Amino acid sequence: MANFTEIATQFTEFYYNQFDTDRKQLAALYRDTSMLTFESSSVAGAAGIVEKLSSLPFEKVKHAVSTLDAQPAPNDGIMILVTGALLVDEEQRPMNYTQAFQLLPDGAGSFFIFNDIFKLVYGA
Amino acid sequence: MANFTEIATQFTEFYYNQFDTDRKQLAALYRDTSMLTFESSSVAGAAGIVEKLSSLPFEKVKHAVSTLDAQPAPNDGIMILVTGALLVDEEQRPMNYTQAFQLLPDGAGSFFIFNDIFKLVYGA
Repeated sequence: MANFTEIATQFTEFYYNQFDTDRKQLAALYRDTSMLTFESSSVAGAAGIVEKLSSLPFEKVKHAVSTLDAQPAPNDGIMILVTGALLVDEEQRPMNYTQAFQLLPDGAGSFFIFNDIFKLVYGA
Repeated sequence: MANFTEIATQFTEFYYNQFDTDRKQLAALYRDTSMLTFESSSVAGAAGIVEKLSSLPFEKVKHAVSTLDAQPAPNDGIMILVTGALLVDEEQRPMNYTQAFQLLPDGAGSFFIFNDIFKLVYGA
């Protein structure tokens, strides 16, 4: 396997750039077997996932990644844990979030998202 | 597979109880193939992982889980994302953290930790 940290970093940059530019285009990163849990609400399959992401109640969003850690996972997968902050619409206060991804090889030299869990983090 | 959310909840309760009581005993939850990334420092194998956890510079620790989300993962595994807060020693201010686990079946009806990524979360 290529350098998993490098792949994880490239993937994460691409994912959030795409999310913040046009999140409908994220469909290409998921498959029919993919799962998303967004603020404890779960959907499966690329179509359902993108419908969920598209329906989120904001127009503009900007993610800023603070930390990224990656590990090799079974089946030549990659597990990623991101922490960061995001700003939506005209809101001035960033919200902290954490997001865990499991990427799997797509058989064509790239990776797709199998597991995706997103959660806002509130102060203790 | 049994209910993955139920297994994830039971596992997480057991893990943090054990961590807060006697973290050396966590060895039983890891295997030689397991990986831990703790605040971006990585170790592999049950022995190395428990040595790392045991060497953390606090005596007393108490985790409080705020949220837990789980998804089925490849190979009958379970992926878990936890957010929570922890208190160490006589410190009065809790620290926020996030932790992602990937559990795999151990072939004997239970699960072990394959991937474990822990990260403190600081305010945006």
